[in-house]
Amino acid sequence: MYTVEEIANLLEGKVVGDKLKKVISLSSFIEATESDITFASEKKFISKINQTKAKVVIISEENNKELTLKEDKILILTKTDVRKLLPKLLKFFKKETKSLDELIEKDSKIGKNVKIAPNSYIGHNTTIGESTIIYPNVTILEGVKIGKNVIIYPNVTIREFCEIGDNVILQPGAVIGSDGFGYATVGEKHIKIEQIGKVIIEENVEIGANASIDRGAIGDTIIKKGTKIDNLVHIGHNDKIGENCLIVAQVGISGSVEIGNNVILAGQVGVAGHLKIGDNVIVAAKSGITKEIKSNLRVSGFPVQDHKKDLKTKIAMTKLPEMLKRIKKLEKEVEDLK
Amino acid sequence: MYTVEEIANLLEGKVVGDKLKKVISLSSFIEATESDITFASEKKFISKINQTKAKVVIISEENNKELTLKEDKILILTKTDVRKLLPKLLKFFKKETKSLDELIEKDSKIGKNVKIAPNSYIGHNTTIGESTIIYPNVTILEGVKIGKNVIIYPNVTIREFCEIGDNVILQPGAVIGSDGFGYATVGEKHIKIEQIGKVIIEENVEIGANASIDRGAIGDTIIKKGTKIDNLVHIGHNDKIGENCLIVAQVGISGSVEIGNNVILAGQVGVAGHLKIGDNVIVAAKSGITKEIKSNLRVSGFPVQDHKKDLKTKIAMTKLPEMLKRIKKLEKEVEDLK
Amino acid sequence: MYTVEEIANLLEGKVVGDKLKKVISLSSFIEATESDITFASEKKFISKINQTKAKVVIISEENNKELTLKEDKILILTKTDVRKLLPKLLKFFKKETKSLDELIEKDSKIGKNVKIAPNSYIGHNTTIGESTIIYPNVTILEGVKIGKNVIIYPNVTIREFCEIGDNVILQPGAVIGSDGFGYATVGEKHIKIEQIGKVIIEENVEIGANASIDRGAIGDTIIKKGTKIDNLVHIGHNDKIGENCLIVAQVGISGSVEIGNNVILAGQVGVAGHLKIGDNVIVAAKSGITKEIKSNLRVSGFPVQDHKKDLKTKIAMTKLPEMLKRIKKLEKEVEDLK
Repeated sequence: MYTVEEIANLLEGKVVGDKLKKVISLSSFIEATESDITFASEKKFISKINQTKAKVVIISEENNKELTLKEDKILILTKTDVRKLLPKLLKFFKKETKSLDELIEKDSKIGKNVKIAPNSYIGHNTTIGESTIIYPNVTILEGVKIGKNVIIYPNVTIREFCEIGDNVILQPGAVIGSDGFGYATVGEKHIKIEQIGKVIIEENVEIGANASIDRGAIGDTIIKKGTKIDNLVHIGHNDKIGENCLIVAQVGISGSVEIGNNVILAGQVGVAGHLKIGDNVIVAAKSGITKEIKSNLRVSGFPVQDHKKDLKTKIAMTKLPEMLKRIKKLEKEVEDLK
Repeated sequence: MYTVEEIANLLEGKVVGDKLKKVISLSSFIEATESDITFASEKKFISKINQTKAKVVIISEENNKELTLKEDKILILTKTDVRKLLPKLLKFFKKETKSLDELIEKDSKIGKNVKIAPNSYIGHNTTIGESTIIYPNVTILEGVKIGKNVIIYPNVTIREFCEIGDNVILQPGAVIGSDGFGYATVGEKHIKIEQIGKVIIEENVEIGANASIDRGAIGDTIIKKGTKIDNLVHIGHNDKIGENCLIVAQVGISGSVEIGNNVILAGQVGVAGHLKIGDNVIVAAKSGITKEIKSNLRVSGFPVQDHKKDLKTKIAMTKLPEMLKRIKKLEKEVEDLK
Repeated sequence: MYTVEEIANLLEGKVVGDKLKKVISLSSFIEATESDITFASEKKFISKINQTKAKVVIISEENNKELTLKEDKILILTKTDVRKLLPKLLKFFKKETKSLDELIEKDSKIGKNVKIAPNSYIGHNTTIGESTIIYPNVTILEGVKIGKNVIIYPNVTIREFCEIGDNVILQPGAVIGSDGFGYATVGEKHIKIEQIGKVIIEENVEIGANASIDRGAIGDTIIKKGTKIDNLVHIGHNDKIGENCLIVAQVGISGSVEIGNNVILAGQVGVAGHLKIGDNVIVAAKSGITKEIKSNLRVSGFPVQDHKKDLKTKIAMTKLPEMLKRIKKLEKEVEDLK
């Protein structure tokens, strides 16, 4: 727990309100609760500053002009652009972890009938549910919670504090909780923004070989129950993937994407960041999604469009050289007719 | 070995023929031998039911109308659609494996001059051929057979019962024998179909870093001799890749694809499921293959076409905005001429 | 160190010049120093044979017709095409490595405050800088040099002789120094060309989960300081990636590509081999780069073009079926007007 003043000092900012108010953790504007501190760097958040549940909000001094605040809000006003302070802020809130001493750390809680193969590392304060099977060369870092009947194949990594539901299957080489690709660019340098969120994988999910699921920057990456993710898929930080989705091999999903239930993304599809995809959407292979997709649509292509229209577009594409010739011929004929 | 009756009881089906006939294993319609049991769920198989070598065939009751069977065929008729029974059926036929006890299990057969680095796990009933080198943090699970002079780099996983030929090289992080992406969707839920096949990698094959080769669902995934597979390639379940192919980085091949000999798939190509690609085919980078490709063709694009035509199509594509303008101009001129 | 004669004998070639001259190592035509031996198989190199700093050059006999050499150059003339001799030549120059004996080899040099978790392998003659953290199930092979304050997450592989700068972060499953995809095709067989270069990763670089960075064939693959590489990215052999680049998830870069500083390649971009990309270039997601890109350009598409033009092209693409109809209508109208 930290006082508002401590954080203000860290960021060389001024406090407007109760300096001694205590906050527990840093959270995103939308997901924050009353005991959290948050920040607003984008205009859309600054104008809605009373809508975050966080009592304490960090904003740049220059954004404090026309704000009318709820009485109980406390502000930290910074001279520097808040975006540029994020590396410092997240580093401050990153949880410290213990040193790694023994193959199976003594403070890990291993359930009944758990099978741990030789050569796997089980970190501090981990919880492994009943009848879970852990194959060789698996690494499970500090604070990870794993449910019952989970199968974790060889060479899987589950990083700090991630949560794995019951009956989950992780194929070999899958990585859960790698850092998201988050940097604050100052001049030409990219300063790392510590990724302090985690990954939550709900029950009955399967993750394919060598797939990678990034942890949230602030807040969590969530894969909801029953979803199946194929080999070599990339899931970016803070993505929320709905229930019973099928995410086929080599799909890449950028950060902060929200996907509904029963969605199918076929192989090698790419999804740009901060988008929403509704329920029951089907996206054909190799499509590139750069805009919101409403529920129940079947789409394909790059740019993405209705699947049937895209099929027609693809057929027409192969006629393009011929079309060029036909246009040239028409131009000549029209010229002659004039 | 199981009696037909046992399996009929499992599926709540009726036997037509000899209930006490014994079957050894479950096999695919096409690959089955006389001692196997198989199933027919698709029309193309049901109509050709006498062509499978399997003596025992499982079909849905409703498909048993106009069949004229060879005398020695035995049927199991199920009330439920056979597709929906697959999870149960494959679970039944999945081989049980032993518990993992020691870093190098005592019943493994290690050939002469084999070098096993510290920290690698060698499973039960494995066979490792002469002069093979196994780097650290490798996991080789039960029943795997590895040839002579094989090099297995760190963090490689070879799952149960897979076979690796002589002189094969597996780059770091490669996964051989992960489960294929196979589910039976019942309502909105995706029920796992156990993948009971294996991967067979013939001699002189090389597999790139963090590539993943899925095991067959029923029957095997096969990579034939001399083929080279680059980093981060995905090979789906039951694929058969011919001899001396070059499969470049990040290619993704869906399940049940058959590829001939001497084929080159350049980087990031995607191949849809259940397709055939002939011998000596060359596919340019980033192409998407959704139909059969005959031997000796050079193709590219998405949709795929003759490579030279695709190059013309790609050039024409960059003229599209201009073409639109020219059409508009023509329309106006023609209007004026009328 | 080897005499020119030894190497000539290996390749069944003749020496023109000092047979007893000693060479230290094999190097590429462009990167060679005076103490190196190199080879020239492509015309562009043969005609510029005096420009390599290497004293000793291997060429095919038939290419020795119209060459006028600097006095101190020594030639090895081979009957066989030099390309086909490469497997033999590189195998000869490949450094032998020691056998792997203990989890932390005794001749490794571990700096102050280095934390090595259980189950990680630290190879012979490695150097690990101060305060570096090595998580479980990491493999660091012979001769690797690692700087200070480096973080190496679980299941990472760093192969022989690679160099990792200060403050580098390697996310789980990343592979540094896998063999490049290099073969000499003789008849239908692909003969492996040993990859004798290494990977040099400069300071402040981050490499994503399950990314793979191939070592150089001859000469090195280099990732310059401050560059950040996302999950599942493929970097080919001999690539030189500039400073402060952002290479987003699932990008694939073929071999021998040179990329400038401050370049952004968005997700799933592919880059063909032997190309140059200038400084400050931005490439949008899923683009395919098959030609040189000059500095300061923003490009996208496949074929790649100016980003704004590509956006217009993509919009026009969705109008293609309609354009076809309009052309048909025009043709009819023009026919009627004739």
